[in-house]
Amino acid sequence: MTARPLPGTDCAAGIRARVADRAGRIGTDGRRPVLAVVTATDDAAAAWYVRSIASAAETAGVDCRVVDLGAQASPGEIGACLQDLSADRDVRGIVLQTPLPAGAEPAVLAGAIVPDKDVDGANPLSLGYLAAGRRAFAPATAEAVVTLLDQHDVDVAGCHVVVVGRSTVVGKPLAQLLLDRDATVSLCHSGTRDLAAIASSADIVVAAVGHAHLITAEHVGPGATVVDVGTNPTDDGGLAGDVDPAVVGKAAALTPVPGGVGPVTTALLLQHTVFGPGG
Amino acid sequence: MTARPLPGTDCAAGIRARVADRAGRIGTDGRRPVLAVVTATDDAAAAWYVRSIASAAETAGVDCRVVDLGAQASPGEIGACLQDLSADRDVRGIVLQTPLPAGAEPAVLAGAIVPDKDVDGANPLSLGYLAAGRRAFAPATAEAVVTLLDQHDVDVAGCHVVVVGRSTVVGKPLAQLLLDRDATVSLCHSGTRDLAAIASSADIVVAAVGHAHLITAEHVGPGATVVDVGTNPTDDGGLAGDVDPAVVGKAAALTPVPGGVGPVTTALLLQHTVFGPGG
Repeated sequence: MTARPLPGTDCAAGIRARVADRAGRIGTDGRRPVLAVVTATDDAAAAWYVRSIASAAETAGVDCRVVDLGAQASPGEIGACLQDLSADRDVRGIVLQTPLPAGAEPAVLAGAIVPDKDVDGANPLSLGYLAAGRRAFAPATAEAVVTLLDQHDVDVAGCHVVVVGRSTVVGKPLAQLLLDRDATVSLCHSGTRDLAAIASSADIVVAAVGHAHLITAEHVGPGATVVDVGTNPTDDGGLAGDVDPAVVGKAAALTPVPGGVGPVTTALLLQHTVFGPGG
Repeated sequence: MTARPLPGTDCAAGIRARVADRAGRIGTDGRRPVLAVVTATDDAAAAWYVRSIASAAETAGVDCRVVDLGAQASPGEIGACLQDLSADRDVRGIVLQTPLPAGAEPAVLAGAIVPDKDVDGANPLSLGYLAAGRRAFAPATAEAVVTLLDQHDVDVAGCHVVVVGRSTVVGKPLAQLLLDRDATVSLCHSGTRDLAAIASSADIVVAAVGHAHLITAEHVGPGATVVDVGTNPTDDGGLAGDVDPAVVGKAAALTPVPGGVGPVTTALLLQHTVFGPGG
């Protein structure tokens, strides 16, 4: 058996096309809507990701404004920048790229992003709105997982979904989105005693641990759908997922890395920027 | 086998004693610290709960101020009341009692409770802080579950905990608190396909569905610990838990109703009021 591939590239292209159509109509005075990306790091993977946002924005008629504060930026500088962008009427979306310099807490600083521009759902208020069932931006990566499953007609309602990884940016908000769609959700992590037993009982396994090839065939039951959120840099400049490639011989369906969740994530940032929350 | 009982009464009394000690020292001008409870309902169960808070407050040296706006109160009136209490320097804690009149959304109105007085963790910002690992009040019922397990030396780290019920006030924040303590958490609900199969594989089952005796022996594995969050009114004026009494013959340990999670919950509201978040 070879797993059916669940690519994200067509899905992402479709989102970008809708964004481009809309962006052409909302720009004022011929100017394009602006997505601001704030960075304060020398991290190569972060730079790669920011370039991919900028590239996707270009094809979707969105102006991606990268504000690089440098790896020595203080929390005060970062916070002030986010406040300025929140007040800037030309800016419709704001992303605070991680990692941040030591001492700068993403969850604290993201509180300075006004919720209606918080297109990556990083402000704790956005997370709280999500948990309370109020209209808010979800973190783009978490939303990309459910969007990609939708696109490939994988209905999560009633399914047992095991999410491996409990991060604030993926695992936790993803659990929230899956519960909203009537999935039964198990959150596993580094402290989970018998990951293989729990994960292999799932209808859908989502790997969001940030560790190359950690999820192997023993973690996947026959017939399961596997979503790989991992984007781990490899020595040769490529990307490795969190899922061992051998899983393709056991799972029923599998998202590729690259070309799976990643492009959908960047497309959703643009969708959020031009359509607003729930758009 | 008969399950070991895990009562909450001693635990609650201990918390109230610490609160009373502290309350005696923080009152200004001989006045006691104030916990305000805002109600806008004729619901009998809500009235019973509010009386239990007032009674616990009395024994703990806290002044419980019940503000009854009546079952016809508008969202605007409720919001204005919460804003006034948030600004009132004498008030240290605010609880917005549910249910609310039709058209009044708890998650929206609770946004008017200033986070440092949000002793029941109802403001979406408190929920978001909790998810993002920032210091905040947790909803008292959710926190009571982990407090009661602590009190009886049930270590959740590494355990598989199945939480039945996905409410904003119990199931979701409880999952968060359990993840913080390294439990593996499965969230089940009315849309879960085979609840018995998942729940009976758990080390700990938490019933928070609001349906009398829904959790039966088939949902509980031998040796499991069962926490009953249910407080369902019975025809004779008593309370029934979410767990079928027959479970006592299968589980290793079981919290009683009444006298389990309930008294710990009210004690924690008082603890939050005098000690603040994380206190």
